[in-house]
Amino acid sequence: MSNPTAAMLVIGDEILSGRTRDANMYFLAGELTKVGIDLKEVRVVSDDAPAIVGAVQSLSAAFDSVFTSGGIGPTHDDITADCIAQAFGKAIDVRDDARALLAAHYANSGQELNEARLRMARIPDTAALIDNPVSIAPGFSIENVYVMAGVPSVFQAMVASVLPTLTGGAPLLSQALRVHRGEGDIAGPLAKLAEEFSDLSIGSYPFQKDGAYGANIVVRGTQGARIDAVMSKLSELFS
Amino acid sequence: MSNPTAAMLVIGDEILSGRTRDANMYFLAGELTKVGIDLKEVRVVSDDAPAIVGAVQSLSAAFDSVFTSGGIGPTHDDITADCIAQAFGKAIDVRDDARALLAAHYANSGQELNEARLRMARIPDTAALIDNPVSIAPGFSIENVYVMAGVPSVFQAMVASVLPTLTGGAPLLSQALRVHRGEGDIAGPLAKLAEEFSDLSIGSYPFQKDGAYGANIVVRGTQGARIDAVMSKLSELFS
Repeated sequence: MSNPTAAMLVIGDEILSGRTRDANMYFLAGELTKVGIDLKEVRVVSDDAPAIVGAVQSLSAAFDSVFTSGGIGPTHDDITADCIAQAFGKAIDVRDDARALLAAHYANSGQELNEARLRMARIPDTAALIDNPVSIAPGFSIENVYVMAGVPSVFQAMVASVLPTLTGGAPLLSQALRVHRGEGDIAGPLAKLAEEFSDLSIGSYPFQKDGAYGANIVVRGTQGARIDAVMSKLSELFS
Repeated sequence: MSNPTAAMLVIGDEILSGRTRDANMYFLAGELTKVGIDLKEVRVVSDDAPAIVGAVQSLSAAFDSVFTSGGIGPTHDDITADCIAQAFGKAIDVRDDARALLAAHYANSGQELNEARLRMARIPDTAALIDNPVSIAPGFSIENVYVMAGVPSVFQAMVASVLPTLTGGAPLLSQALRVHRGEGDIAGPLAKLAEEFSDLSIGSYPFQKDGAYGANIVVRGTQGARIDAVMSKLSELFS
């Protein structure tokens, strides 16, 4: 039985302009791997409505679940919620449950729940809220799409809220062997091993650093005993 | 006149499994910004032929140029070159010019140009080679797609080989102001400013760190004087 599949959609000009180095992709990839959900594709698009709508529709149709990050704050460049509503043909407006969360929070902190902040209570019809213990303004899920904030601390908290609600698969296990030989020397025997253990994924990731070179051979699968078997063959071959 | 557009395709299971944190996207985004090419989309897909072929075709059709990273080494999981050939309906085989580069290199280093290493000379018909001063095995370009290695030092060297051959646009300039107020407080005036300076991109990127919070307001455009004008208005508003 194969694991559930997922895709991620990172929304924001700051990654594509090289200003910010993405952190959320790396975090989500690790978390999904732990619970046995296979992250199959990531897309990064800019703050552009047709690009966001198109990507959401295409990823939502192709994978079991989709996780988005970015674009749900109070400023004019935060257009994700409206794009998600459009992608699913839903109406969107300030919703009472989200407004109540924000009202309580800003009353406590003595800040005004102004028009800009109210934008963060715009939630598409039929969506369920995602808890945000860090800064209160909620994410939401609709159909198979989970819409979360781009600020890494908030994104991580929202992922922690969402993951227990998902059905995972067999957690992906992995072991690695670092080999100080060129990939060209190990490629032949490695290809034979990959054929023999076709239930596992065997990847070779070359490195070159400070004049040394070689490859990290990474074996991934859901059966620990099978991975152990490959690892001992790898040790025989390359140690 | 708008700038040329580009997309990037990152190929490899190691990013999607959370094992490796991508470095090439961040590097390429910065380099393209410097030469006035707008990076509009990034996709990350796994070592899976239909996924690679589909992404190459779709990105190649949608953008002026496409840059790929990963999957052109000698091991069995390196399938990028064959997928690119398939995407453009071209034949692929070991090509004499690429073989000659490898033969000279391995003769010098006293290593065998074995069958695995010869895989790195598989180049689609009509493709032009991309110089690899780091480890010799070439990348290649075909139509509007530039196919490069995943190892960051090699990827960076190949990008340096390719960029001077591309027609850039007006380099994207940017200035940033760090504001220690909540986004909800600055969003209103910021939206008005964005409307007034609609030739510029004004983005707000919130941060929360060690109990402090606020936003970096980033203004991007190709006209330095226009950016200066916004920055002085921002200082008046928020300092």
